[in-house]
Amino acid sequence: MTEFTLHGTLAADTVEAARWPLCRVLLAKDSRYPWLILVPQRAEMTEIHRLDPADQSQLMTEITRASRALETLHTPDKINVAALGNMVPQLHIHIVARFRTDAAWPGPIWGAHPPVPYAAAELDAALEALRQALN
Amino acid sequence: MTEFTLHGTLAADTVEAARWPLCRVLLAKDSRYPWLILVPQRAEMTEIHRLDPADQSQLMTEITRASRALETLHTPDKINVAALGNMVPQLHIHIVARFRTDAAWPGPIWGAHPPVPYAAAELDAALEALRQALN
Repeated sequence: MTEFTLHGTLAADTVEAARWPLCRVLLAKDSRYPWLILVPQRAEMTEIHRLDPADQSQLMTEITRASRALETLHTPDKINVAALGNMVPQLHIHIVARFRTDAAWPGPIWGAHPPVPYAAAELDAALEALRQALN
Repeated sequence: MTEFTLHGTLAADTVEAARWPLCRVLLAKDSRYPWLILVPQRAEMTEIHRLDPADQSQLMTEITRASRALETLHTPDKINVAALGNMVPQLHIHIVARFRTDAAWPGPIWGAHPPVPYAAAELDAALEALRQALN
Protein backbone atom coordinates (compact mmCIF):
# COMPACT_ATOMS: atom_id res chain seq x y z
CA MET A 1 0.00 0.00 0.00
CA THR A 2 1.65 3.20 -1.18
CA GLU A 3 0.90 6.44 0.64
CA PHE A 4 -0.17 9.58 -1.14
CA THR A 5 2.56 12.17 -1.56
CA LEU A 6 2.18 15.34 -3.57
CA HIS A 7 4.10 15.31 -6.88
CA GLY A 8 7.22 17.49 -6.74
CA THR A 9 6.19 19.71 -9.65
CA LEU A 10 2.82 20.43 -8.09
CA ALA A 11 4.51 21.13 -4.75
CA ALA A 12 6.94 23.54 -6.41
CA ASP A 13 4.37 25.44 -8.48
CA THR A 14 1.68 25.96 -5.83
CA VAL A 15 0.97 26.81 -2.21
CA GLU A 16 -1.53 24.86 -0.15
CA ALA A 17 -4.77 26.70 0.58
CA ALA A 18 -6.83 23.94 2.23
CA ARG A 19 -7.17 20.21 2.82
CA TRP A 20 -10.60 18.85 2.05
CA PRO A 21 -11.89 15.31 2.60
CA LEU A 22 -10.65 14.15 -0.81
CA CYS A 23 -8.36 16.82 -2.22
CA ARG A 24 -5.50 19.09 -1.37
CA VAL A 25 -6.55 22.53 -2.57
CA LEU A 26 -3.55 24.33 -4.03
CA LEU A 27 -3.15 27.88 -5.33
CA ALA A 28 -0.99 28.07 -8.46
CA LYS A 29 1.85 30.58 -8.18
CA ASP A 30 0.83 32.53 -11.26
CA SER A 31 -0.64 35.93 -10.48
CA ARG A 32 -2.10 36.20 -14.01
CA TYR A 33 -5.03 33.96 -13.09
CA PRO A 34 -6.98 32.99 -9.96
CA TRP A 35 -6.04 29.33 -10.38
CA LEU A 36 -6.71 26.44 -8.02
CA ILE A 37 -5.51 22.87 -8.40
CA LEU A 38 -7.36 20.04 -6.66
CA VAL A 39 -5.30 16.93 -6.01
CA PRO A 40 -7.18 13.84 -4.79
CA GLN A 41 -5.15 12.35 -1.93
CA ARG A 42 -5.02 8.90 -3.48
CA ALA A 43 -1.73 7.19 -4.21
CA GLU A 44 -0.81 6.47 -7.83
CA MET A 45 -4.06 7.91 -9.19
CA THR A 46 -3.90 9.32 -12.71
CA GLU A 47 -7.43 9.44 -14.16
CA ILE A 48 -10.82 10.68 -12.91
CA HIS A 49 -12.52 7.58 -14.30
CA ARG A 50 -10.33 5.32 -12.13
CA LEU A 51 -11.43 6.93 -8.87
CA ASP A 52 -13.99 4.80 -7.05
CA PRO A 53 -17.59 6.07 -7.22
CA ALA A 54 -17.56 7.60 -3.71
CA ASP A 55 -14.38 9.55 -4.53
CA GLN A 56 -15.85 10.65 -7.89
CA SER A 57 -18.88 12.00 -6.09
CA GLN A 58 -16.72 13.80 -3.52
CA LEU A 59 -14.55 15.21 -6.32
CA MET A 60 -17.64 16.72 -7.95
CA THR A 61 -18.59 18.28 -4.60
CA GLU A 62 -15.12 19.74 -4.20
CA ILE A 63 -14.97 21.03 -7.81
CA THR A 64 -18.25 22.82 -7.09
CA ARG A 65 -16.98 24.30 -3.82
CA ALA A 66 -13.75 25.50 -5.43
CA SER A 67 -15.58 26.98 -8.44
CA ARG A 68 -18.02 28.85 -6.21
CA ALA A 69 -15.20 30.24 -4.07
CA LEU A 70 -13.47 31.63 -7.18
CA GLU A 71 -16.76 33.13 -8.38
CA THR A 72 -17.40 34.75 -5.02
CA LEU A 73 -13.93 36.24 -4.85
CA HIS A 74 -13.37 37.23 -8.49
CA THR A 75 -16.66 37.33 -10.45
CA PRO A 76 -15.03 35.80 -13.54
CA ASP A 77 -16.57 35.53 -17.00
CA LYS A 78 -15.98 31.75 -17.04
CA ILE A 79 -14.64 28.96 -14.90
CA ASN A 80 -12.37 26.49 -16.70
CA VAL A 81 -12.22 22.99 -15.19
CA ALA A 82 -9.66 20.56 -16.57
CA ALA A 83 -7.86 17.32 -15.79
CA LEU A 84 -5.01 17.13 -18.29
CA GLY A 85 -1.94 15.48 -16.76
CA ASN A 86 0.13 15.21 -19.92
CA MET A 87 3.13 16.60 -18.05
CA VAL A 88 2.46 15.69 -14.41
CA PRO A 89 0.84 12.24 -14.24
CA GLN A 90 -0.54 12.56 -10.69
CA LEU A 91 -4.28 13.24 -11.03
CA HIS A 92 -4.96 16.95 -10.53
CA ILE A 93 -7.85 19.14 -11.59
CA HIS A 94 -7.35 22.76 -12.60
CA ILE A 95 -10.08 25.24 -11.64
CA VAL A 96 -9.33 28.60 -13.21
CA ALA A 97 -11.24 31.88 -13.12
CA ARG A 98 -11.10 33.34 -16.62
CA PHE A 99 -11.77 36.86 -17.85
CA ARG A 100 -12.34 38.24 -21.33
CA THR A 101 -9.44 40.58 -20.54
CA ASP A 102 -6.93 37.94 -19.39
CA ALA A 103 -3.64 37.19 -21.14
CA ALA A 104 -4.67 33.91 -22.78
CA TRP A 105 -8.39 34.56 -23.46
CA PRO A 106 -10.13 32.85 -25.20
CA GLY A 107 -7.43 30.18 -25.47
CA PRO A 108 -6.46 27.73 -22.73
CA ILE A 109 -3.98 28.97 -20.13
CA TRP A 110 -1.69 25.92 -20.08
CA GLY A 111 1.55 26.64 -21.85
CA ALA A 112 0.30 30.01 -23.09
CA HIS A 113 2.67 32.21 -21.11
CA PRO A 114 5.33 31.74 -18.43
CA PRO A 115 3.90 32.30 -14.94
CA VAL A 116 4.05 35.77 -13.39
CA PRO A 117 4.97 35.22 -9.71
CA TYR A 118 2.97 36.89 -6.96
CA ALA A 119 4.77 39.48 -4.83
CA ALA A 120 5.07 38.08 -1.28
CA ALA A 121 2.45 40.42 0.22
CA GLU A 122 0.13 39.78 -2.71
CA LEU A 123 0.40 36.01 -2.23
CA ASP A 124 -0.34 36.34 1.49
CA ALA A 125 -3.43 38.44 0.72
CA ALA A 126 -4.63 36.04 -1.99
CA LEU A 127 -4.22 33.05 0.33
CA GLU A 128 -6.01 34.77 3.21
CA ALA A 129 -8.99 35.71 1.02
CA LEU A 130 -9.05 32.24 -0.50
CA ARG A 131 -8.98 30.44 2.83
CA GLN A 132 -12.00 32.43 3.98
CA ALA A 133 -13.89 31.75 0.75
CA LEU A 134 -13.00 28.05 0.73
CA ASN A 135 -14.26 27.45 4.26
CA MET B 1 -39.03 27.35 -19.70
CA THR B 2 -36.52 27.27 -22.54
CA GLU B 3 -35.87 23.98 -24.29
CA PHE B 4 -32.39 22.60 -24.82
CA THR B 5 -31.02 23.04 -28.31
CA LEU B 6 -27.47 22.22 -29.31
CA HIS B 7 -25.27 25.28 -29.91
CA GLY B 8 -24.65 25.89 -33.63
CA THR B 9 -20.86 25.71 -33.36
CA LEU B 10 -21.01 22.36 -31.54
CA ALA B 11 -23.50 21.08 -34.12
CA ALA B 12 -21.21 22.17 -36.99
CA ASP B 13 -17.98 20.77 -35.52
CA THR B 14 -19.22 17.33 -34.43
CA VAL B 15 -21.38 14.34 -35.30
CA GLU B 16 -23.70 12.74 -32.78
CA ALA B 17 -22.55 9.34 -31.53
CA ALA B 18 -25.11 8.68 -28.77
CA ARG B 19 -27.76 10.20 -26.52
CA TRP B 20 -27.33 9.33 -22.88
CA PRO B 21 -29.66 10.21 -19.98
CA LEU B 22 -27.93 13.55 -19.39
CA CYS B 23 -25.66 14.26 -22.33
CA ARG B 24 -25.49 14.23 -26.08
CA VAL B 25 -22.30 12.38 -26.94
CA LEU B 26 -20.62 14.03 -29.90
CA LEU B 27 -17.55 13.05 -31.92
CA ALA B 28 -15.41 16.06 -32.90
CA LYS B 29 -14.65 16.22 -36.60
CA ASP B 30 -10.89 16.29 -36.13
CA SER B 31 -9.17 13.08 -37.15
CA ARG B 32 -5.99 14.07 -35.28
CA TYR B 33 -7.52 13.01 -31.94
CA PRO B 34 -10.16 10.57 -30.67
CA TRP B 35 -12.21 13.42 -29.18
CA LEU B 36 -15.67 13.26 -27.63
CA ILE B 37 -17.74 16.17 -26.42
CA LEU B 38 -20.46 15.63 -23.80
CA VAL B 39 -23.23 18.22 -23.79
CA PRO B 40 -25.68 18.10 -20.86
CA GLN B 41 -29.16 18.51 -22.33
CA ARG B 42 -30.08 21.39 -20.04
CA ALA B 43 -31.15 24.73 -21.43
CA GLU B 44 -28.97 27.76 -20.77
CA MET B 45 -26.42 25.81 -18.73
CA THR B 46 -22.87 27.14 -18.74
CA GLU B 47 -21.01 25.77 -15.71
CA ILE B 48 -20.60 22.33 -14.11
CA HIS B 49 -21.07 23.82 -10.66
CA ARG B 50 -24.53 25.15 -11.62
CA LEU B 51 -25.88 21.70 -12.53
CA ASP B 52 -28.11 20.31 -9.80
CA PRO B 53 -26.53 17.54 -7.70
CA ALA B 54 -28.35 14.69 -9.50
CA ASP B 55 -27.12 16.00 -12.87
CA GLN B 56 -23.58 16.42 -11.50
CA SER B 57 -23.60 12.82 -10.39
CA GLN B 58 -24.90 11.65 -13.77
CA LEU B 59 -22.29 13.78 -15.54
CA MET B 60 -19.54 12.02 -13.58
CA THR B 61 -21.02 8.66 -14.60
CA GLU B 62 -21.11 9.71 -18.26
CA ILE B 63 -17.56 11.16 -18.18
CA THR B 64 -16.42 7.78 -16.83
CA ARG B 65 -18.30 5.85 -19.53
CA ALA B 66 -16.92 8.05 -22.30
CA SER B 67 -13.36 7.85 -20.95
CA ARG B 68 -13.51 4.07 -20.71
CA ALA B 69 -14.86 3.78 -24.26
CA LEU B 70 -11.93 5.83 -25.59
CA GLU B 71 -9.49 3.71 -23.58
CA THR B 72 -11.00 0.50 -24.89
CA LEU B 73 -10.87 1.68 -28.48
CA HIS B 74 -7.57 3.54 -28.55
CA THR B 75 -5.36 2.62 -25.53
CA PRO B 76 -4.20 6.23 -25.12
CA ASP B 77 -1.38 7.45 -22.88
CA LYS B 78 -3.73 9.90 -21.15
CA ILE B 79 -7.33 11.04 -21.14
CA ASN B 80 -7.85 14.81 -21.02
CA VAL B 81 -11.15 15.97 -19.51
CA ALA B 82 -12.02 19.66 -19.74
CA ALA B 83 -14.92 22.08 -19.47
CA LEU B 84 -13.62 25.34 -20.94
CA GLY B 85 -16.37 27.24 -22.75
CA ASN B 86 -14.47 30.44 -23.40
CA MET B 87 -15.64 30.41 -27.02
CA VAL B 88 -18.89 28.41 -26.91
CA PRO B 89 -20.79 29.24 -23.72
CA GLN B 90 -23.11 26.20 -23.74
CA LEU B 91 -21.74 23.76 -21.15
CA HIS B 92 -19.76 21.02 -22.88
CA ILE B 93 -17.08 18.66 -21.62
CA HIS B 94 -14.21 17.54 -23.82
CA ILE B 95 -12.95 13.97 -23.39
CA VAL B 96 -9.84 13.47 -25.49
CA ALA B 97 -7.59 10.45 -25.93
CA ARG B 98 -4.01 11.73 -25.95
CA PHE B 99 -0.81 10.09 -27.14
CA ARG B 100 2.83 10.97 -26.59
CA THR B 101 3.08 10.98 -30.38
CA ASP B 102 0.13 13.29 -31.11
CA ALA B 103 0.41 16.69 -32.79
CA ALA B 104 -0.09 18.82 -29.68
CA TRP B 105 1.53 16.62 -26.98
CA PRO B 106 2.17 17.53 -24.20
CA GLY B 107 0.28 20.79 -24.69
CA PRO B 108 -3.51 21.15 -24.75
CA ILE B 109 -5.25 20.46 -28.06
CA TRP B 110 -7.55 23.49 -28.10
CA GLY B 111 -6.35 26.07 -30.56
CA ALA B 112 -3.11 24.16 -31.21
CA HIS B 113 -3.78 23.24 -34.82
CA PRO B 114 -6.64 23.56 -37.32
CA PRO B 115 -8.74 20.38 -37.45
CA VAL B 116 -7.89 17.65 -39.95
CA PRO B 117 -11.25 16.40 -41.30
CA TYR B 118 -12.00 12.69 -41.43
CA ALA B 119 -12.43 11.12 -44.84
CA ALA B 120 -16.08 10.03 -45.20
CA ALA B 121 -15.37 6.29 -44.90
CA GLU B 122 -13.03 6.93 -41.98
CA LEU B 123 -15.73 8.92 -40.14
CA ASP B 124 -18.28 6.15 -40.72
CA ALA B 125 -15.85 3.57 -39.33
CA ALA B 126 -14.96 5.73 -36.32
CA LEU B 127 -18.65 6.29 -35.52
CA GLU B 128 -19.49 2.63 -35.88
CA ALA B 129 -16.69 1.55 -33.53
CA LEU B 130 -17.58 4.32 -31.10
CA ARG B 131 -21.26 3.44 -30.98
CA GLN B 132 -20.39 -0.14 -30.08
CA ALA B 133 -17.94 0.95 -27.38
CA LEU B 134 -20.32 3.56 -25.95
CA ASN B 135 -23.20 1.11 -25.56
